[in-house]
Order: sequence, then C-alpha cells, then structure tokens
Amino acid sequence: MTGPRPGTIALTDAAQVLTLAGPAGARAGAEMRELGILEHATLVIEDKKLAWVGAHEQFTARREAGEFAGAQVHDCRGKVLMPALVDPHTHLVWAGDRRDELELRLRGADYEEIFAAGGGILSSVRQTRAASEDQLYGQSLARITRMRACGATTFEIKSGYGLELEAELRQLRVARRLRDEAGFRIKTTCLAAHAIPEEARGSEAARASFIERICEQILPAVVEAGLADYADVFCDRGAFTRDEAAKVLARAVALGLELRVHANEFGHTGGAELAAEFRARSADHLLHLSDGERAALREAGVTATLLPGTSLVLAKPYANGRALVEAGVPVAVASDCNPGSCALENLAMVLGLACYGCKLTPAEAIVAATHNAAVSLGLGDEVGRLAPGLDADLLVLETDDYRDLVYHAGSPLVREVWSRGQRVA
Amino acid sequence: MTGPRPGTIALTDAAQVLTLAGPAGARAGAEMRELGILEHATLVIEDKKLAWVGAHEQFTARREAGEFAGAQVHDCRGKVLMPALVDPHTHLVWAGDRRDELELRLRGADYEEIFAAGGGILSSVRQTRAASEDQLYGQSLARITRMRACGATTFEIKSGYGLELEAELRQLRVARRLRDEAGFRIKTTCLAAHAIPEEARGSEAARASFIERICEQILPAVVEAGLADYADVFCDRGAFTRDEAAKVLARAVALGLELRVHANEFGHTGGAELAAEFRARSADHLLHLSDGERAALREAGVTATLLPGTSLVLAKPYANGRALVEAGVPVAVASDCNPGSCALENLAMVLGLACYGCKLTPAEAIVAATHNAAVSLGLGDEVGRLAPGLDADLLVLETDDYRDLVYHAGSPLVREVWSRGQRVA
Ligand SMILES: [Zn+2]
Ligand SMILES: [Zn+2]
Repeated sequence: MTGPRPGTIALTDAAQVLTLAGPAGARAGAEMRELGILEHATLVIEDKKLAWVGAHEQFTARREAGEFAGAQVHDCRGKVLMPALVDPHTHLVWAGDRRDELELRLRGADYEEIFAAGGGILSSVRQTRAASEDQLYGQSLARITRMRACGATTFEIKSGYGLELEAELRQLRVARRLRDEAGFRIKTTCLAAHAIPEEARGSEAARASFIERICEQILPAVVEAGLADYADVFCDRGAFTRDEAAKVLARAVALGLELRVHANEFGHTGGAELAAEFRARSADHLLHLSDGERAALREAGVTATLLPGTSLVLAKPYANGRALVEAGVPVAVASDCNPGSCALENLAMVLGLACYGCKLTPAEAIVAATHNAAVSLGLGDEVGRLAPGLDADLLVLETDDYRDLVYHAGSPLVREVWSRGQRVA
Repeated sequence: MTGPRPGTIALTDAAQVLTLAGPAGARAGAEMRELGILEHATLVIEDKKLAWVGAHEQFTARREAGEFAGAQVHDCRGKVLMPALVDPHTHLVWAGDRRDELELRLRGADYEEIFAAGGGILSSVRQTRAASEDQLYGQSLARITRMRACGATTFEIKSGYGLELEAELRQLRVARRLRDEAGFRIKTTCLAAHAIPEEARGSEAARASFIERICEQILPAVVEAGLADYADVFCDRGAFTRDEAAKVLARAVALGLELRVHANEFGHTGGAELAAEFRARSADHLLHLSDGERAALREAGVTATLLPGTSLVLAKPYANGRALVEAGVPVAVASDCNPGSCALENLAMVLGLACYGCKLTPAEAIVAATHNAAVSLGLGDEVGRLAPGLDADLLVLETDDYRDLVYHAGSPLVREVWSRGQRVA
C-alpha cells in the first residue's frame, strides 16, 4: 500500500471514464459493447467507495456550491479511468515452477504427452504437496502482487495441486490468507478434480476410489471448513470423463457449492453440456464448441470464460469469442495463471489476446474482464463498474483512448491501480 | 533520464548475468542457445561503457586490492542482468492511429481487403503527409519512450508513410532527431517502396513511374542527405512484385546502401530469394518459407528477422523459427511496431511470442533480440552483449531466472533499463 489512508479523493477531468453503466446482470450480445463512456468526467471516492461520477463541469459546479469539501484532487486530464480488472479463473497458489517443461515443449514435446508421462500437473502436485503453508503463501503473494500491478484487484483462485485432503485444504487456506492478511478480493474454488494423482493411476478401481474420496472426504471437509465458494472439475481428454465429472458436480451441489467447469479445451468432451445441465456459474476454455452447445450455455445462463493465454502458450486454436457474443452468451476473460499451461500474469495483456485471438472487440474484452467476470463470481455489486456505491477499484490509464489497451497490448499503460479507495500499484 | 551522470558503477552479485560471450558475428544453430551465463556475478560500468564483468568474489577481491575505487554499488542480488534489447525492424515514426481499423478487423474484415480498399498503409500515409515535422517528432518520441521502458534501447526505424520525396525525408529526419536530440541508438532505413501511393494506382504506367521516382529521385536524395543506413522493399502480394523489388534493391546497392527486405509474409512471393541474391543484411517476416529458401538465406549470410507480433495481430500463422534455427540461419526478433498490422511496443513481450508462436527457446529468443539483432544492424561491437568495451546498455530483471521473461511474458519484470551507462527507465 502506498500513501496514507485517504478521505475524499476526486480523480478529475479524465479524457474517458468507462462507467459500464447498464444492466446489473451478466451482459451478452450488443450489451457487451456498451462501455457507458463519459468524456471530460470526474469520479469521487469517499473512503473505500465510489461516491459520485459525472461530467467534470458538474463536479466543479457542485464543489463551488460546497459539496465534496476537503476533496483531495488528482488531475486525470488526458487519461482513462476504468474499473479494475477481475480475473475469474486462476490457479495462482502453487509451489515451484515448470520452466524446464516450457523449454521441452518449445522444442517439440506436446502438452498432452508431457501430461500422460506424469509431468504436467503432477509435477506441480509434487512440489505443492512438499511445500509448507508459509512457503506456498510467500510464493503466491509475490505472484498475485505482480498480477495486481498489471491491473487486476479481484481474483478467483482454485485448488487442485493437492489432490489429497490436507494439501487441498492448505492451498485454499493460503488463498483465504491472501484475502484476509494481504487484502486482495478473492473467491475460492475447490478443484480437487483437477487430475488423477499418481497414487490413483494404477487401476480403474484406484481411479474410482479417488473420485469417491473427492465426493465423500475432500469436498465435505472443504465445505465444513468454509474454505470454498465454488467447486470445479476438469472435464476433458486426459482428465475426468463426463460421468466422473457429473458425479463430482452433483455432490458439490448437494453440499451447497456453486459450480465452475473446465470444459471443451481438448475436444467436444461433454463439459460444456454438463455446465449447462448443472447451471454452472461459468464454463471455461471452450476451444471446441458447437452452435448447440453455445445455445445450451445461453439458455442455462452460464458465463463463457475465455482463457486465450493458454491457447497462446500451448499453440492451440483460440476459443471463438465472436461466435459466443453473437450467440448471446455472456463472455468473461481470465488469465488461467498456472504453473504449466499458462503462467501469464498480466490480465491486461491477455485482454489483448482475447481480441487478437478470440475476436472480441476492445469494448467487449473490457466488459468481459471487469463486469461480466465480477458477476460470474457473485461480485457484480462490489466491483466491475464505476457507479456510486460500488467499491473504488479502478485503473488510471496513461492514454486518452481505452482501445490502446489492445492496440498497444503489453505497453505500460496501466499507470495506477486502486483498490477499495487506496492506490495499491 | 533519471539521476545524475555516473562515474564508476558496480551492479553487484546478480543471480545471473547473461554475458552472451562467444563469437562476434551473427549466431546460428546451437550457438543461439549459449547465453554465457555467470551466476553470482558483478558488472562494472565506467562512464558509458562496460568495464568489467566476472564472479562477484573476484570483484570483491579486486576491490579490496584497490581497484574500482569510488565505485557506486548497486545491489543486484536475486536479479538478472542482461543486454538491453535491440529492435531491428520498426516503423515507429508515423502520425495518427488506426484504432478504428483494428475494430473493423476484429469484427471480420481482412487486412489485405482493407489494404486493397485504400485503407491500411495508405491511411497512415495520408495522416503522416499531413503532419508537421514537430508533430511527427512528438508522437514518435512518446512511442519510442514507452518502447524503451519495455527494454529496448536500440532501434531500426523505416520510412514508408511518405511515399513522396518530402514526406520520406521528413520521416527520416525525425528518426535522426530521435537519435541526436533524444539520445536513442538508431539506424534508419528508406522504405519508399512500402506501398503504391494513391496517386500512382490509376494505371500500369503510373505504377512504373512511381518505381522510377523511388530509384531516380527519392533514394538518391535520401543518400545525398545522408539520412539512411539501409534501403528496404515490401516484396509481397498487394505490394511490390519481385521484378519491381529487384529494380529498387539494385539501385539502392548502386547508391551504396545496405539492404533489408520485407519478404514472404503473405506467400512464396520471391522476397526471400531476392534477399539471398542481393545478400541483404536481413529478410523479415518469412511466414512462408521452403527448405530451399532457408538454405539460400543461410548460404548468403542473411539474418532472418521474425515479427511474431504481426502474426498475433493479423491472426496469421507464425514464422517457423524452430526450422530456421535448425537450418542454421541466424535469427533475430523485432516488434514491427507500426500503425496498422502491429502497434505492439513491448519487445520483451514479443520475445515471448517468438517462443510460443515461432518455437524459439527462451535463450534463442534472447540472442535473437539482442546480439543477432545488433549484428544485423552493424552494431555488434556496441551493444547486444555484456562484455568490456561495449556500451553499457543493459536490463535489470526482477527475477533470478531469465526464462521468466517468457514463462511470465508480459509481467513487469524489466525493472531497470540502462543505456550508455545511465539509467533511462
Ligand atoms: Zn484452469
Ligand atoms: Zn515492416
């Protein structure tokens, strides 16, 4: 945290304020292009909250009439104000790294091969199981702090590198500590069904008993400890079958958890259909999707979360975001930050990939990585828009046109990051 | 520029110093993986130059013996020191922007269609012709300053948005002012053969007379004014034919210029073969390349410059960097920063794309964007390695493993940028 705790702060006369004024629910279709832009506008923060937003002239008039007394003025001429980013799909609590594997892959090895050979996720499982809670916390804090410097203040964090009770609980406790001790806004997801662990790979019976353990030991203990907001399943080739995934999801629902699903990354593997059947909050990846699957997601109110960083890193095709928007499915964008298939930490840059790769427009990508992401995490009334009453989580961009976030993707345009009324980067 | 002009500065005890010790010429094949890494190493800067690099223990011993007196010590424990990046292909002097065109393209229009319809390059030509030299300088300075903050201190800059004598000269003068007034290390290239201008599109005769004007008016005047180090031709579908390109290249050689060629971006259009025939310093883009063309480039000593940002932005395939390395062609990587097909400014991020897209390893990508780029610009004895006698152009990375530049591509890892012994970002 930099600087003292503020009282009233006015960010004045910005070239553009992206308010995202509009419906409170997840946005789809043409709604995804509406940024509610105010030009020459001012935004007032009181304590942790947004108190007022409007034309700079109105602000000046009100101030002369005695309102906003004592406001500290922060000149934002020539800059853009927009909601801070919301990252609705990360695996950011892990130990160690897989930089060696990255080099192997670049010289020709395939991710699914590495995975089948016991590398991939299982290598992170070994390193994460071996780490103490404090080691895990320290490494994750460094990571999430870098991620925040790139513009995100809200994160979903999944477990899934434990794959046994104690290590899963430890990952989720670390995620909660990032919220309670370090002040990040975080939702947690139990992804015990991320991969079949080494010890359960010997036989069909061992595999079945691992699924049983997820349903009857891990998920109930996680719920009992109050450590998760969601459950998730990796339903795909090389991971969990549709039937296995359905079993885990049904159990999670019975335990009172809401759902997110890793779906259709490697093929039409039933994950998207399951997400629709179970009315999950989100179906994620979606590289392979038919018109029927898109319609099912729309009808069931499932948000489609795109992870274009993973497509880049694994040299897979990009999910067709354009088709999702045109089919009326609400779209979100996330980093997928994880040690293997995509260790990218910069969601602002990933938003560029969502445009160049998935064919969202800059406006659609911004709605996807702010309001729609927030709604998919049940946080649509806290963050994701710039409206009075919401938390003051916002970005100051060093440009007068928000489209530069995509046009110059990767440039150092995120000049300031504010969370709950304080400048944090 | 931040801080006062230094005398002797020691950057001490870095986790890794990537010296790139090795042959002075462009590197190819397995040489591209040799970073000459020293661990726990120290680097001494005297005035603008690198004076010493070696083990930190040796530095300490020498210092106790009275060497490096008065050195200002800058603790680099846990960090990586590496050569500053060299960007050997940019079009960064232009006026205006093409953000509207970007949105069109994302919603379905094709670059070649936009180009054929008089948009694309020609829209930048209109805006650049209309700008005064000072306007052009101001916009370009803002851009190159952001690019330097991302890690590059040396740039090649092409003209090509003038397409008439005065405007071409103006672009090149602005590039020279960025060198002489703003202190960037810059090589300039006359790319009058970038596109057929509007006024020459009416007939074959008009087209032929434009080529004639390049050869007999623009190139001679540019050489006469001493404004260009290189000539370049966009030899591709929708641009210049092989015969037209050959005419321009031959004239440039006769005028004493060295050559660079935009080649094989849209197809096997003869550009790579021409680059080999004319022994150009560099052939750039190379999305479509046969084994025979790779062999021709190798035999002719042409550096293959990859521009993976453009592949990302235009959703084209990536050039096969792996095949070029394996064929023994020296590879460089550049941003291609330009207003239309790729306005990406962050070469450190583009280096990540060179890995994920073109299948270079992190080490190969670093050699490509430092030493090999410098050699292709005739600057191999000034920058691109960390060796005594070279200019002190270097980066301090906020990580202890250089591979994080790719693993966490886009993260804010470039903590300090030094050029000629001064910290500039
Ligand atoms: Zn995931
Ligand atoms: Zn170019």
